[in-house]
Formats: sequence, C-alpha cells, structure tokens
Amino acid sequence: MGKLLDSIHSPLDLRTRSTESLKELCKELREELIQSVSESGGHFASSLGATEITVALHKVFDTPNDRIVWDTGHQGYIHKMLTGRREQLPTIRKKDGISGFLKREESEFDTFGAGHAGTSISAAVGMKVACPEKNVVAVIGDGSITAGMAFEALNHAGSLNLKGFVVVINDNEMSISENVGALSWAFSRAVTSKFSTEARKRFKSLHQKGFVPEIIYKAIDRAEEATQGFLATPAMLFEALGFRYIGPIDGHDLEDLIPALENAKNQDGPVVIHAVTVKGKGYDPAEEDPITWHGVTPFNPEKAKFHQSSSGAPSYTSIFSKAAIALAKNNKDVIAITAAMPGGTGLDKFQKELPDQFFDVGICEQHAVTFAAGLATEGKRPICAIYSTFLQRGFDQVVHDVCVQNLPVCFAMDRSGLVGNDGETHQGLFDVAFLKSLPNMVIMSPKDENELQAMVATGVSHEGPTAIRYPRGSGLGVALDSVLSPLDIGKGEIVVHGEEILLICLGPMVQNGIMAGSIINKNYGVNPTVVNARFVKPLDIQLIRDLALKHNVIATIEDHSLIGGFGGMVVEALNDCGISKNVIRFGVGDHFVPHASQNEQYEAEGLLPSQIAKRLSMLLPLAAAAV
Amino acid sequence: MGKLLDSIHSPLDLRTRSTESLKELCKELREELIQSVSESGGHFASSLGATEITVALHKVFDTPNDRIVWDTGHQGYIHKMLTGRREQLPTIRKKDGISGFLKREESEFDTFGAGHAGTSISAAVGMKVACPEKNVVAVIGDGSITAGMAFEALNHAGSLNLKGFVVVINDNEMSISENVGALSWAFSRAVTSKFSTEARKRFKSLHQKGFVPEIIYKAIDRAEEATQGFLATPAMLFEALGFRYIGPIDGHDLEDLIPALENAKNQDGPVVIHAVTVKGKGYDPAEEDPITWHGVTPFNPEKAKFHQSSSGAPSYTSIFSKAAIALAKNNKDVIAITAAMPGGTGLDKFQKELPDQFFDVGICEQHAVTFAAGLATEGKRPICAIYSTFLQRGFDQVVHDVCVQNLPVCFAMDRSGLVGNDGETHQGLFDVAFLKSLPNMVIMSPKDENELQAMVATGVSHEGPTAIRYPRGSGLGVALDSVLSPLDIGKGEIVVHGEEILLICLGPMVQNGIMAGSIINKNYGVNPTVVNARFVKPLDIQLIRDLALKHNVIATIEDHSLIGGFGGMVVEALNDCGISKNVIRFGVGDHFVPHASQNEQYEAEGLLPSQIAKRLSMLLPLAAAAV
Repeated sequence: MGKLLDSIHSPLDLRTRSTESLKELCKELREELIQSVSESGGHFASSLGATEITVALHKVFDTPNDRIVWDTGHQGYIHKMLTGRREQLPTIRKKDGISGFLKREESEFDTFGAGHAGTSISAAVGMKVACPEKNVVAVIGDGSITAGMAFEALNHAGSLNLKGFVVVINDNEMSISENVGALSWAFSRAVTSKFSTEARKRFKSLHQKGFVPEIIYKAIDRAEEATQGFLATPAMLFEALGFRYIGPIDGHDLEDLIPALENAKNQDGPVVIHAVTVKGKGYDPAEEDPITWHGVTPFNPEKAKFHQSSSGAPSYTSIFSKAAIALAKNNKDVIAITAAMPGGTGLDKFQKELPDQFFDVGICEQHAVTFAAGLATEGKRPICAIYSTFLQRGFDQVVHDVCVQNLPVCFAMDRSGLVGNDGETHQGLFDVAFLKSLPNMVIMSPKDENELQAMVATGVSHEGPTAIRYPRGSGLGVALDSVLSPLDIGKGEIVVHGEEILLICLGPMVQNGIMAGSIINKNYGVNPTVVNARFVKPLDIQLIRDLALKHNVIATIEDHSLIGGFGGMVVEALNDCGISKNVIRFGVGDHFVPHASQNEQYEAEGLLPSQIAKRLSMLLPLAAAAV
Repeated sequence: MGKLLDSIHSPLDLRTRSTESLKELCKELREELIQSVSESGGHFASSLGATEITVALHKVFDTPNDRIVWDTGHQGYIHKMLTGRREQLPTIRKKDGISGFLKREESEFDTFGAGHAGTSISAAVGMKVACPEKNVVAVIGDGSITAGMAFEALNHAGSLNLKGFVVVINDNEMSISENVGALSWAFSRAVTSKFSTEARKRFKSLHQKGFVPEIIYKAIDRAEEATQGFLATPAMLFEALGFRYIGPIDGHDLEDLIPALENAKNQDGPVVIHAVTVKGKGYDPAEEDPITWHGVTPFNPEKAKFHQSSSGAPSYTSIFSKAAIALAKNNKDVIAITAAMPGGTGLDKFQKELPDQFFDVGICEQHAVTFAAGLATEGKRPICAIYSTFLQRGFDQVVHDVCVQNLPVCFAMDRSGLVGNDGETHQGLFDVAFLKSLPNMVIMSPKDENELQAMVATGVSHEGPTAIRYPRGSGLGVALDSVLSPLDIGKGEIVVHGEEILLICLGPMVQNGIMAGSIINKNYGVNPTVVNARFVKPLDIQLIRDLALKHNVIATIEDHSLIGGFGGMVVEALNDCGISKNVIRFGVGDHFVPHASQNEQYEAEGLLPSQIAKRLSMLLPLAAAAV
C-alpha cells in the first residue's frame, strides 16, 4: 500500500482532503521526518511539534498566494516536505543541500528567510500592507514572541486594522530551553484555564441540542467569557494591543486548528491564535527531553541514541562554562547572563552550580546587554554570553549603554567565525567589524581553549567592556591551567620564531597559521614566524611593527569578513605607523556563507592550512629578498 | 524676597518641605527653566512636563541611595536643577558645559546615561538585582515604552518578584512627535476612563464619612474595579506582565503623585505608575505645539519667537524629504518609513502629501527595518529614514532580514558624522564600520545636497540594500537638479584635477578637502587633486588606484571613526591591489565625542580645512618627489 504522502505534491493536494485523511498524513509526515533526521541530523523537536499546525495552515490558506511567514525556521521541516522538498530532506543543512531554515531562493512558499527569532510578525505586517488582498500568517513560538521586535510589530499591526492577518503562537512552553519571563507564566495560566473552554464547548453543544434555552445560554456564555478574560492573561495582552485572541486551542488537533484558522481568516481585524503544542510530539524521547532533541546529530531512532562523535578535545563552549563557574565561585559579583541559550552557551552548568549568580532573560539580547550594564553600575561583573550572530541584536546597547559608559561587561561571543550547518543567518563573521570602532571596547580571541580560560578571567577583571570571540566546536586538546590569570591587555605573542614570512593570526586561525608554516618549512625550508594576536583591540602595534620590519612577506589570517576585519585592523595600524608593506589577508570574502560543514566552509574561503601554505609559497622569492 | 529654589541645595532639602511649598517650588523651577532654555536652547517641552514627577520622585525616594533611572534624558533638566547643577544650566549642551542628557560622570544622581529611548527599565532591573535593598525607579515616556527592549525588560522584571521596583510612565501622548501604535490607543482609553477613578474616590469618601454601608461599598467597589479592568487596557497589559498597575493619575498634581509613589514603594512586587502629563506644561506655546517645542534654539520667551538662524542654504534633511516625495509621486511603490521621527527626518511633509505611502512605526527601529524588508519582498521600494545612531538599534535586522536576502531597502541615515550638541550618545560615527562588512550593502555619502537627491534616487532604483549617510545641518546652497537621476553604483568623481597630493574625501568632507586644497595651493602653489568618493562600498577602486599611482601624498578625509571607517576601506583596498603607499587618514579618533557645536567638534578632531592644510603642508617635500 502506497503512502498517502506520495499523493501530496503541493499544498494544493491537501485542500481536497478530509480532516481524517490529514490526520493520517500527519502520522506519515512524522514517521518520515524521524527517519530522515535520524540519518541527517538537524533541528528536530520543533518540527515534530508543528506538524498539525503546518498541515492546517496549508489546508486553510491559499499558499503560496497567501503568505505564511515562519519565525526562526526551526519548525520548517514539515513545511519543506509539503512544498516540494520532501526528496531533498536528507540533504538538509549539508553543502549544496537544502537549508535548515526558511530561504526565499529555495521555494516560493518560503516567503521570508529566518534564523534569528522574532522577525516574522514585522515581515508579515510589511507583506500585508503591500498586499492587502492576500491573507498573511506569521507563525511564532512562545519563546520568540518575547523578543522585543515581536512586541513592536504587534503594537504596529494592532493599530492598522488589518483583515486577514493572523499570528499563530505555537506555544510549547519552550524556546530552545525552558521559557522565562512573566509572559510565559501568563501563557501557562491560559493553558490551565483551558478547562473553561472545554466546559463552554460542552455547554454549547447542549444548547444546540435544545437542552438549554437561548436566553440562559447567552447570559452564561457571556459571564463565562468575562471570567475567561480575567484568567487568560495572554488574551488581555493581545487585546490591549488591538488583536482578537482565539485560544488556547490544542495545536495537535486538526478538528480544533482548522476551524480556528478559518475563523481567524474571516475576522474583521488582526487575530492571534494561541495553539498549545508539545515540542517533540510523536517521538517519545523528544517529548520527554525536548532540549536535548531540539537540534540533533544523527541517531538511532529505535534506541534513541546519538551516534558517537569522534572528537576527544573539550568544546570551547564547555571550557568557557568551566572558567565562568570557577571565576564566579571566587567572586560573588560575577554574574552570568544568557538570552535563552543556557545549553548552547554552556551556562546550564553554571545555572546548576550557582543559580543566584545566573540569569536567563529569554530571547531578549537587547535587554540582556543593558541589564548587564545596570548590574555593572552597581559593582557587579556580568558575563553576557551571547553568540556572535545574536549580539548583532544588542548592538546599540553595546554602544550606548556599555561602551559610552565604559562599564565592565564581558561579552562571551561563542560561535564566532564560520559556524557550519546553520549557514548564512548564523555566521559570526561581522563581530570584529561592528565592535572594533567602539571606543573603550577590548576585543580578544583565543588560540586554544586554555587561552579562552585566561580571556574569561581577563574580561571579568578588566575595568571596562570586553568581548571574547571563540569558535563553534572542539578545542585543540591542550593542557588547561588550573589557576586562571588575566592576560596583559593588548599584548600578543610570538608562537613560532621564524624568518622571511610573518603570519599574524587571530584566534583559531593561529593553529592554521602554525600548520601552514610547518608545510612551508617542510616543503621549502623556510620557517615562517607565527604571531598569536590575542587582541584585535588594542592591537599589539609594537610587536606587529617590529616584526613587520623584519619580514618581507606579511600575512594575516582570520575567520572573519575581510572587509573591516582583523586584517584590516593590522593594515590600518601598519599604515598609520608609516610602514608601507603589503599584507596578504586571509579571511572570508564579501558574501554570505551558506550552510555546509565547518571544514567545507574553511575550504571554500581558502583558510585550510594547505591552502594558506600554497598561496604563500608563491611569494617565497619575494620573502627571501633582503629586508 | 528670595526664591524658595535658593534654599534647595540637594534633594534632601525637598524631603522636609510640605506639598504646598513643593507646588510653589515647581512654579519657580518652571520659570527658571523657561528663562534659561530661552537663552541656551535645548530640550524643553519634556522637562516642563516632568516637573512635578521629578520633584515628587526626589521627595519620596532617598536619592541618590535609591536609584532613579531616567529614560532618554530629554526630561532631565529639572532633575539637574535639583541635584546641584542649577547654576550650570545655562551651559547645557555647550562645549565643556553640562550634558543635555543624563551622564554618570556628571553626578552621582545620574545613575545611568541615556540618549536613546527605551533603555531605562533594563538598566533599572540590573541595579535592583544588584542592590535588592535599594528602591529603584525607572521613568519612561509612553513613546519610549513602545521600544521592544522596554517590553523585554518588563517581561523579565515581572518574573523576578521585585519589591521596591517602580516604573513611572510619563504619559504625554507623545514621543517626540505624536505617538502611534495600538498601545497608545490603549493609553488613551485608560485616560478616558479616568472618570471611573474619580467616581471611585468620591464614593470612597462618602463611605468613609459613613454614608455608604461597608458591605455595599465593598461589592460596588469590586464591580467598579472589574469594569475598570476592562476599560483600562494598560492595566491588562502590565498586569499580564506581572506588574501592579496604578493609574492613570494626574502627573501635575503632587497630591496624587506623592501618595502614589509612596504606595508603589511599599508594594510587595513591581509596580507601574501611569502618570498623565502635558508636554510643555506651564508654557502655553509649548503646550499648544509640543512638537515644535520639543528641542529648541534660543527664543524670546515673551513673544515665543525663535531667534533667526543665519544660514540660507536648505538643510540636508529638507532636501532628502523633497527628493523622497518627488520619487514617491512618480512611483506608488516607494514607501517612506520613520521610527517616531517624522519631523527630524523631514518626512512630516511626505506624510502630509502622501499619507498612504507613509508609515510611522513608533520608536521601533527593529520593526521598522524588518517591516521594510517585508514590504520589499512584495515589490515595494521602502525608504527607511533612521538617524545613523538609531540605526544601531536595527543592526541585526539590517544584516539578517535585508542584506542576507538582498532586498531593496534604502536606509536614509540622517545625522551621520559629528552631530553637535547632542553629544556622545547621538554621534553618527560608526555606521560605515557596522555596514561595510555586510555583503550586498551599498554605502553612499553625498558631497552636497544636490548629490543627496541623486543618491535617494539611486537607493530607490537599486536592486538591493543601500544606505545613504548625510550630516546634520545645512547643505552648501548649490543648485538643485530638477530631474532626479540615479548615480552609477560604485563610481567616484574627481572634483579637483591637481597634482602631488591626493585627497580622497567622503560626503561633507569633500568640501573640506576642496577648501584645504585651496589653502595649500594659495600658500605653497601646489594644487591637490580632490576626489569625491561617493561610494564607500563598492569603493571605486580603479579610480583610487590609478590616482594613487600618480600622487606621492595620499590622504583620506571622513567624518567617521578612523578605526573601521572609510579611510580604512581605502587602505584595505590599496593594500589588496598591491600598492604600498602610506595614507594620511583624517577622521575621528578612538574616543566618544562629547557635546559641543558641530564646528567645535570638527576642530577637536582636526577636520577643519585649515587644520587639514596645515598637516598636509608638512608633507610637501615628500609630495614634490618624483612618483
């Protein structure tokens, strides 16, 4: 017997199906998703939880003519399967495969790219204003909706009197980790009060069957509604913002979802539908532990066991976490802050050990930064652990609240550089560019995980703002100092004393520089000098100038955009101290870097040691000339 | 008879005063403020409106031990007068005088610097968490509270169960211009329903006098409260977020304000006080037209007339506005967007002429950017007019929603460069640095107001993101083309064909370059070549390389941070095409630039034509050598 799914070539094929048959379809979609992601890895639990919502949306709305805007995109896998990309699902997040997020160039059904949280409502308002005749739906998680920009967008949308504008809140009581903030309590209260909705339904059915007279039914229904209004605080919130609130409804029940969406489509103004779902729905291990199963590496679906990863060295993330804990244990003023990423930043362990010195503020990078600034004015030593790409969201706060006031906030920017499978939206390729022009800011990047420890200590002890950029993935497996000591601010180090060629390297690229140097030495008998810059700002100008004068070929290596990056800082500095020597700059070109493995991305940007060695070896005749 | 104000040396002196005498004090404060600002200029209407709130706060709270965090800082003048800076008020916003905003280094009563809107609650939460024993108050306007980060902070604060944490909303139904968004309707509804509060008060007094029996009083009071709950939607919003809501109260009535603040101080959890005020209160012309009187130049207080400004040339702002209107009239797809600055950006005129193509989204730069991106996906041509410094707030959205998707959004960045009296928080010195590393982004800056017109046309017609940086103040008074034609993307121009010295200039610095060149020519007989770069990105590398080869002394001039700026772009480009010549870089040093006049700031940074000429003239021996 063939799969029902085989008959679904586009959302059009859903629209003629009965609700019963769509239920069967959801089952098949889940099974295939579990099978596929168990082989490819990827974001998992969110899509399982959004299966019925996705099917119902494509059933009720005339996609792609009507617009569905998915927030963040974690939950987009079922959407991809229904919109012509089912066969490509095994290629997801792989080089030349489909993206793990929504992407406009991938499908006309992907109306707006996403990756960062909270953008969908703003984009949807734009689309609706441009095309008033189309229905526009934004689908956003209860975690993402706490992002300030979602509120800004709701406030704007609520004033525009939009008909056919629907915000579906996929409420699984989670962002990537557990939700925080007052609004999440409000959501929970709403769900608790769901009994009231159920009671109403039964009451209505009794009325329809003639057991309850019209006048009594209406009076009680209205009273019930008033009570509901007081219990269901999200209703208060959204109605204050000009939305009609429908919910909470069961986000796994197509019998609830489809009429609710039909109803929303036909309202005279904007509507919020609050759908309650279970993250990981349909795969027991994911339902039980949706944090672990949010994004996964390949696993055995029957045994719910992840295939072993081979690397033995600890991750930068884990070393950051250990260092932060060690420093915070010694100093009660050290406070760790995350914006909804306790797991991703490694601060979950900090939270367990030192709950009183830990804050998860939700998907609110702006608030995280200024909250940290507020703490710092009172003598605290906040460490704000925010991925490089997400710190973009708090940029103005870094400038205006931290740097202008020269406050001691330490930004731990995990996932700087090339991040691998998440692709364009998550690359940490701009942090040096957006931070280096800010007065007071110290920018560091460690050559290995031991130096990362020292940099965290440096950040916590420095009397001003600091930012540490470190990459996704494993360290080098080096020995770790047991005592954490701050580094001298602005001092680089020579890691290989050589001649003729000077490699000035940043962070993880120090290792690539050393390896490139070894290749050159082995093949050509020239041993390049390798410098670990350590600091982008203040740059160790004295060291770099002295060495630049002694070498004929100078190169910089960074895992950052070449325009405005670390190499640019070196070129500017050499220029300003009157040294007119060209610098070969290795780094990332002027383009967004799509998903692939981290190593494939390094290769694409010419950052592998062999590639660096090859390009430099062509300059050896120049290098050998007298200085 | 001496002034009461003369006896107030610090907030301590307020605490022993009766409410009656504080009312008198408010009168004196207003009179002196009007007199002083009429001579110095400055932000005006906001402080007038916040007079009673300021006095009441310092009366009720034990400042500076208790913390008051003022949002934005427009309304801080009365606060400054009460906290030891009364005599310095005439120096406000002037070089070496006191700041027009709050500033930590200026006073221990200024707990947190401000300038951008929406930061106060986040900072206050940080302070409260750091010092649970202190009372912490954030004072925020109803305009600023629509900023997403304020919502993020409320959501966090509401979950922390903070006692002695108060948010005072100064609701004057304005940000700088009229407020927008659903929340502002909700505030209005709350104020309309104030009759209910009044009725309750009278009812309570009747009860207290024994006219109403306890049981009836309680029942009716409760019913009244329920009704109030439904009408007063801000209550719904804030209570959904975990705050106790008090209000609306009359923000000019100390009899209301002082007990409300006392009450709030003693609540078990966080409190919002909604105080309704009149912007410009106490100066009739400002009450009638608070937009004009938000920030003022010196004026005659009796006649309410501004002293004439001397410049005849139109401002960049007005030319931008005219160009946008002209383009939008020809093309219905052109949409203008402002984030609560229709007056400041000049879009008020656009709004009047083309209301259907105009959107003011409130103080919501994040939403403004992604809303524009959403419009662009549907074929619109949005112009997002946001000051350089405020675009920092929407940086992630510029990266993630506009540049990654290569959408045609044109950013009109007014107030780029040195902005004068607003000082550190408002300088537009980082935009090139944070934009130039973004793939797909085109960055332009016009040499005069006529070129600005052409750049707006270029932005609207280019198939991708563009940003135009132009300065505060008047243009050069040049002739204006009547037909607006797009420029060739990435093409600079030679404005003076000369020799020996090459000046590569950006935007308004082209004029300074020309003038510096004239001085050198006059004094030394050497006529420098002057280039108008026009584009930071893509840079006209061919032109610059060709000219660099023909000149011995090369200089760049920009009104931007030297680190990561335009000169850096030129140095990177020359380096990458193998030209090893030093570049003298004129621009802004690695420090925040405090308030002073624009000209004083240019001078402090060595950007006046005479300063440029002087520094370059020392290099003339080098310039004359054979190339």
